[in-house]
Amino acid sequence: MSAVMHETEVMLLALSEIARECWAAHSCAPSFDDKGKDLFDPVTDLDRSIERAMRSKILKVFPADGVSGEEEGWSNEGAARYWSLDPVDGTRALICGLPSWSVLVGLIEGDEHVAGMIDCPALDERLTAVNGVTRRNGSSVRSSGCVNVAKARLSTTDPYLFSGPEAEAFERVRVNSLVVRYGLDALAYARVATGGIDLVIENSLQRHDIDALVPVVRGAGGYIGDWHGGQDWNEGRIVAAATRELYDEAVALLAL
Amino acid sequence: MSAVMHETEVMLLALSEIARECWAAHSCAPSFDDKGKDLFDPVTDLDRSIERAMRSKILKVFPADGVSGEEEGWSNEGAARYWSLDPVDGTRALICGLPSWSVLVGLIEGDEHVAGMIDCPALDERLTAVNGVTRRNGSSVRSSGCVNVAKARLSTTDPYLFSGPEAEAFERVRVNSLVVRYGLDALAYARVATGGIDLVIENSLQRHDIDALVPVVRGAGGYIGDWHGGQDWNEGRIVAAATRELYDEAVALLAL
Repeated sequence: MSAVMHETEVMLLALSEIARECWAAHSCAPSFDDKGKDLFDPVTDLDRSIERAMRSKILKVFPADGVSGEEEGWSNEGAARYWSLDPVDGTRALICGLPSWSVLVGLIEGDEHVAGMIDCPALDERLTAVNGVTRRNGSSVRSSGCVNVAKARLSTTDPYLFSGPEAEAFERVRVNSLVVRYGLDALAYARVATGGIDLVIENSLQRHDIDALVPVVRGAGGYIGDWHGGQDWNEGRIVAAATRELYDEAVALLAL
Repeated sequence: MSAVMHETEVMLLALSEIARECWAAHSCAPSFDDKGKDLFDPVTDLDRSIERAMRSKILKVFPADGVSGEEEGWSNEGAARYWSLDPVDGTRALICGLPSWSVLVGLIEGDEHVAGMIDCPALDERLTAVNGVTRRNGSSVRSSGCVNVAKARLSTTDPYLFSGPEAEAFERVRVNSLVVRYGLDALAYARVATGGIDLVIENSLQRHDIDALVPVVRGAGGYIGDWHGGQDWNEGRIVAAATRELYDEAVALLAL
């Protein structure tokens, strides 16, 4: 492993530890304020505390790098490489006391996703992708090898996010798949990497949701792209699959 | 606590240990056979091994009790009290490598649910309800106190299980609730008991799915009943809520 890649791995592990410390400081159970406009404040506090601590660490070690965080925007916009942060992906799961939320980190150079992490503190499960290899808590993992929608374990976070032609498109895949799971946010992509889920189809994703997923899925042998067979991450429509063959079949069924 | 209740608690803990041993023997990751008709066999093996081991333990300690298991039916049918077993609730989650599956045990005397357990081995989380008190890993828990659908965190395992008037009924609650989570099986009811989720609405449940849930929800201060405001467990339509007020509002919205 090159020195740059080693530095990257060390940074991802440091960011994971930072996120877990912030989470522990919130007593592992963020209280839920039901007073209308303040509804999500306690969770937003956790989001912000994790993002601030991660940003501070990155800029201390790599002062020339950019950082783009979901909560507080850019530091060093335009830098040669930048870190894309989603401090809490799966806020809805978190406020329901569910363990499936995660901390997302992606590292981008030019247009390329060079490293990433899906860290699930409540499951004590950390997926890192560095140097083209995805590891779970240190051990390399592989996607399932599934090549057919008919044999695929499919996931999407919320089927009600699809409407009109998108809903019809998703329905064409859903009715042909083996089993469907909902509500997983980034954990679904972690499961593509570890071989438990074969196919994830979503829309409405932001770059901070996506940037960590790309290297994690690829580094486990999976394939990730948009709904059209391309790699346009800005439209927010994502298909992640255990294999290229499965991705291609899904994209054919999704054609709007 | 009475001697009978102490015996019950000891039995629930023993059944939990037995289930976790069976799960560990399956390497914590049942392989997934994708050869068509054999599709669910590895999981069925885990189901059967857990149910057999639990049944054997119960009949050894309480030879006069009945046992009704999802996989292998009745022992001592017609006994004064019986144990209702679902060795793996959430098979779909299990085969996707997700931690939300659970082992369900209910104890029934006459028509009364006197004790129960929702045990989640992969989350190391055991909810027991004995003597009217629900505990998580030994500490008593309380439901959230939420009294309005508009403030409720709602869950159902699979929205596609509703169709026709049932789908319209669920939709009336869904659009009025604060947030919706899917795919949780019995873990959703465990979260009603621990205060993370406020409302669960499901259909198509069997007695083996339900019998553990009733005492666990009640012992945390929650309310559980059917879609009509009654306690008919045989229709398979269940509403579990943090409070009686929330249950009543949900039932009014669900009226078919």
